Amino acid sequence: MTAQAIPPCPAVLSDRFNTLRYDPAQDAVILLNRAKYPLTTEYVVCRSVEDVARAIETMIVQGGPPLAYAAGLGLALAEPTESAYRAAAERLLATRPTADDLHHLIPAALDRALAALAAGADPKQAILAYVNGEIERGNQVSRACGQHAANLLNDGDTVLTHCIAGAALCWMLWIARHQGKTIHLIPTETRPYLQGARLTAQSAVEMGIRCTLITDGMSAHLMSQGMIDKFICAADRVTMDGHITNKVGTFQIALAAHYHGIPFYVLGYDGPDPHTESADQIEIEWRDGREVLYLAGQRTAVEGIEALYPAFDITPPHLISGIVTDRGVFPAHLVRDYWR
Amino acid sequence: MTAQAIPPCPAVLSDRFNTLRYDPAQDAVILLNRAKYPLTTEYVVCRSVEDVARAIETMIVQGGPPLAYAAGLGLALAEPTESAYRAAAERLLATRPTADDLHHLIPAALDRALAALAAGADPKQAILAYVNGEIERGNQVSRACGQHAANLLNDGDTVLTHCIAGAALCWMLWIARHQGKTIHLIPTETRPYLQGARLTAQSAVEMGIRCTLITDGMSAHLMSQGMIDKFICAADRVTMDGHITNKVGTFQIALAAHYHGIPFYVLGYDGPDPHTESADQIEIEWRDGREVLYLAGQRTAVEGIEALYPAFDITPPHLISGIVTDRGVFPAHLVRDYWR
Repeated sequence: MTAQAIPPCPAVLSDRFNTLRYDPAQDAVILLNRAKYPLTTEYVVCRSVEDVARAIETMIVQGGPPLAYAAGLGLALAEPTESAYRAAAERLLATRPTADDLHHLIPAALDRALAALAAGADPKQAILAYVNGEIERGNQVSRACGQHAANLLNDGDTVLTHCIAGAALCWMLWIARHQGKTIHLIPTETRPYLQGARLTAQSAVEMGIRCTLITDGMSAHLMSQGMIDKFICAADRVTMDGHITNKVGTFQIALAAHYHGIPFYVLGYDGPDPHTESADQIEIEWRDGREVLYLAGQRTAVEGIEALYPAFDITPPHLISGIVTDRGVFPAHLVRDYWR
Repeated sequence: MTAQAIPPCPAVLSDRFNTLRYDPAQDAVILLNRAKYPLTTEYVVCRSVEDVARAIETMIVQGGPPLAYAAGLGLALAEPTESAYRAAAERLLATRPTADDLHHLIPAALDRALAALAAGADPKQAILAYVNGEIERGNQVSRACGQHAANLLNDGDTVLTHCIAGAALCWMLWIARHQGKTIHLIPTETRPYLQGARLTAQSAVEMGIRCTLITDGMSAHLMSQGMIDKFICAADRVTMDGHITNKVGTFQIALAAHYHGIPFYVLGYDGPDPHTESADQIEIEWRDGREVLYLAGQRTAVEGIEALYPAFDITPPHLISGIVTDRGVFPAHLVRDYWR
């Protein structure tokens, strides 16, 4: 089926402009609050660089590309001077260390701003033009990646996923559906933020895809019962040698998939980070452990204890069946060929 | 250190009589509500067999031995006729299928009742004498099992655990402490009921053991970072050929431990079930999937989806480093030697 024959995807998260944008009337960045959506639909208005930085840190926007786009739009809120742009870029880069998108987009957006300043042009417009172009490019990458992933699915497949694999997952499911394939999606709920129970499940509902939720401890058992055909998730960063980092929990599901001989495909969007040769160059973010002691503001654990919250983990290439990108599917250990 | 030198364990769950008992004044079975404890401390008064059966089904009492003891005490609430005892035993046996303790204790208690009826003795007293004896025996088994487990720990160990491993875990930690070993306990929170965040964490707090909570998806990552020395949990049933069934999530942690070369010890209490040769004879309970959509009564997932809740999973013997019982530590594939 050609791309033209696929109707627009009804999942809100399939198009990044649905969830984040710069609003000229308010001179503000408007973000869908992903920490609450869809149980509550709330848009956060960020009027300063600091507002945007805090929105990223508190996971009002999350996911490698979306948080990079939000940061890029946030850069446009800085005072139009070189020193203000440099300080804003530094603040925004410090929000989250693990995903590579942020660390590509902000330096590039800063370059545009400084070049515009030097040329006497409007730096804000230069930033917005660049970042909006990147969002549109990201939408196209997501759709192409989803197309290649859809081609890997068989009619009747039950697909396990973890956290929210973003726009490419939406497109994968939507295109597969229009290829005549019936897919059953099983998301893990993904504690502590429940991205699976909220964002992934909601996307499935919006597309009319059957969706069955499990807790984060159930994947291996379902595999042992023959109930899972494929495990598919995204990656916050892919290394040139085929390691991936993704939401913590991915690694132990990948181990279980490997043990059971179940294919594990990674939605790698626009490929490995050319600046990250291997996993030892990835900084895994440790978030505030107190987030594990609460759920939706309610204390879920006893008093008198500590908690840990590594936000991501790393899965090595030998556990990965293929990395799906906008340029096709690569064996993990050959994913550097994306850049050939 | 001799057993005599260990002071009483301050963990409430280290002594089953703290959480369940028959009260002659009320002619009722009194159960600590483990679905809420310790966030709320509430005792449930069960005045009929049906009350006790429902308390087991709704996890007011949970854990293989405790729920068996509650059921046994519940049998004493039946009308003192053969037909009433048989019906009560049938009802209580139907509450939960996976753990073996219930399925040993109820037939044995029924035998005592029927023998007392036949002999013109008091069947209620016969049941209570038997079940209270079993509770006391279980306390001794827990302590002996905990002693053998404590001997496996090294000073400075960080021990990962899953769900609540009951009185033997409490004794293991308490005895290790009195052996002069400093142990750091890391429980998984154990969704959907959060036994780790509540019961295990609370037991650690009561004993003054350092405790750090994680979500159910973080075990493999912590292992990859060298942060875990041992994985230790209990089993709802041990088979004669060394499979164990335990709270769902155990299997995927066991896979991760095996991958990282981290010892995995199972607290096997009084050994394998002589009536269960291997895993295919274990019925895994599927609980109502809606329990995954809520946490403490609050909806945590979107509408329009299904959910699954397999309550247990099965871990094969080759992933297990040893099964710790009141008679010592057995290699999993030789655990039938417990009965030699």
